[in-house]
Amino acid sequence: MTLDTLSFWLAIAATIAFAVTAVLAVADHGVDIFGVIVLGVITAVGGGTIRDLILGEPVFWASHLIYVEVAILASIAAFVGRSFFTQPQVFILMLYLDGVGAALFGMQGALKTWELGFGGSLAAIMLGVITAIGGGLLRDVLAGRKTLLMSSEIYAIPVVIGSAVLVLLLGVFPDHHSEAVLLCAFMTFMMRVIAIHWHLQVPACLITKSKKEQSSRNNE
Amino acid sequence: MTLDTLSFWLAIAATIAFAVTAVLAVADHGVDIFGVIVLGVITAVGGGTIRDLILGEPVFWASHLIYVEVAILASIAAFVGRSFFTQPQVFILMLYLDGVGAALFGMQGALKTWELGFGGSLAAIMLGVITAIGGGLLRDVLAGRKTLLMSSEIYAIPVVIGSAVLVLLLGVFPDHHSEAVLLCAFMTFMMRVIAIHWHLQVPACLITKSKKEQSSRNNE
Amino acid sequence: MTLDTLSFWLAIAATIAFAVTAVLAVADHGVDIFGVIVLGVITAVGGGTIRDLILGEPVFWASHLIYVEVAILASIAAFVGRSFFTQPQVFILMLYLDGVGAALFGMQGALKTWELGFGGSLAAIMLGVITAIGGGLLRDVLAGRKTLLMSSEIYAIPVVIGSAVLVLLLGVFPDHHSEAVLLCAFMTFMMRVIAIHWHLQVPACLITKSKKEQSSRNNE
Repeated sequence: MTLDTLSFWLAIAATIAFAVTAVLAVADHGVDIFGVIVLGVITAVGGGTIRDLILGEPVFWASHLIYVEVAILASIAAFVGRSFFTQPQVFILMLYLDGVGAALFGMQGALKTWELGFGGSLAAIMLGVITAIGGGLLRDVLAGRKTLLMSSEIYAIPVVIGSAVLVLLLGVFPDHHSEAVLLCAFMTFMMRVIAIHWHLQVPACLITKSKKEQSSRNNE
Repeated sequence: MTLDTLSFWLAIAATIAFAVTAVLAVADHGVDIFGVIVLGVITAVGGGTIRDLILGEPVFWASHLIYVEVAILASIAAFVGRSFFTQPQVFILMLYLDGVGAALFGMQGALKTWELGFGGSLAAIMLGVITAIGGGLLRDVLAGRKTLLMSSEIYAIPVVIGSAVLVLLLGVFPDHHSEAVLLCAFMTFMMRVIAIHWHLQVPACLITKSKKEQSSRNNE
Repeated sequence: MTLDTLSFWLAIAATIAFAVTAVLAVADHGVDIFGVIVLGVITAVGGGTIRDLILGEPVFWASHLIYVEVAILASIAAFVGRSFFTQPQVFILMLYLDGVGAALFGMQGALKTWELGFGGSLAAIMLGVITAIGGGLLRDVLAGRKTLLMSSEIYAIPVVIGSAVLVLLLGVFPDHHSEAVLLCAFMTFMMRVIAIHWHLQVPACLITKSKKEQSSRNNE
């Protein structure tokens, strides 16, 4: 199995996980099957779409409809099999696969930006993050949920670190892009695994609300 | 009257309806005249704008500002004449014209995608739906309203079906695009008419919330 | 100091103000440092990004990463120095600088649209407004706040008037673009200053909610 084949199958698995976690995230909001599919597809391909629009590149799924098809099928499966996917072991598997997706899509986004020579290292990191979390942000906004940005979950920060390391590696080892992407995706994923497993959150000193404000109850 | 002239006047009528229903949708939220115009215009041209960005095509209203102008005037008219437009007979007329808009814009979006050879049949259906509902989604998000995706209204599903039939017809009758668009738009509109007239909703078995969850009151 | 140098430093000051006011706007929502930076950057460069996507132009910050860098540093500074920036005198200074930003970015957006010959005077005004308020709208949507469109603050209306005057001046004095932009930005800013200083709001007759509706309490 070549590295590109590995990347492809990881991306398919991650697309499934993005769609499934999207469906589960809105499962108790009374969404119909159409809304479920739309939210699943947007979560799965939304981040890459925003990235491609900003890059001025053709939207990736126009020539790779397989990602949309997989997202539709996974959304339907998640809708039909809600009781299966909400089992603790299956849900935790989906959560980890979602972490694979954020890591892999983030690194692929940073690589694409870097290879196009778009705007320097900082832009590559930014578009890596947009690729990883853009779909989830769109989903939350359309579903009326609090977005990831307003939580203190450690979700995007590993992607920032992974993308930064990737940009360094791409500069130092110009002939090993696929390897660098997989290595940094693995590293990013491991940071996410640690955060999930030990229920780590961003430390309070890095959150805007002061202790005093937190203790006084606000009705948000 | 040629078919293209018919399409043009239907599109103008639908643009008016989109802008008017947008204004009425936020009428009890205390929006000022500026916000009213912005929301009216976004609802009327937002879906086509998102479609064109994804297609990588010039935004349609740059060369057809008439749609923006009509949306601005209709928004102002709806603001000034709220008491007129909220009369039951006028409101229901606007609801039906809004259905004409969703149907017509949806089919035109699918046709444009298909004619550009962008991504196959599935992409044509997707961009048809985006053209039809994208403006309404933007309006709801900017106005802080629950979006269409979170309701069980039968609004987008007819567009999905109509676009799918359209893609079939475009393949089978390559010389009759205008006719196919108007036929499928009519069919889509009739499905919406049936849904409005009989107050049909998506059946409960196609909604995520289970009966048990529905019966227990949730404060959303 | 040339006019272009003046414009540049005004834009940098305004970028700082946009990022800082963004951070202060979400300061009591419990956002972590990552979310703070994302919201600060989006507020500062989001409007220009939407404008460039609609214009079909390369996103401006790809070749001017200085704006992103300044927004990141300003966001971090605002996060670290919240107690400084929330002092009344500093906050009011930021509010005025934010007004400078809305005015300057709005006029620059209208000018860019006009110089590209994109869609006529109306499109120039529209994209001026989008440049000025687009970032703030994205911030509010992602932060789950009520957007500007749903308030009756006099924020965007000066930009509409300023852009309209600018388009007139650009037609009449084709050799003085930089002067026209700065003049109209100054005029736009002064309208905002008047609105801030006298706490002016859009008059009730230009707001959708009727007096009767306003007096009856609604729980929104």
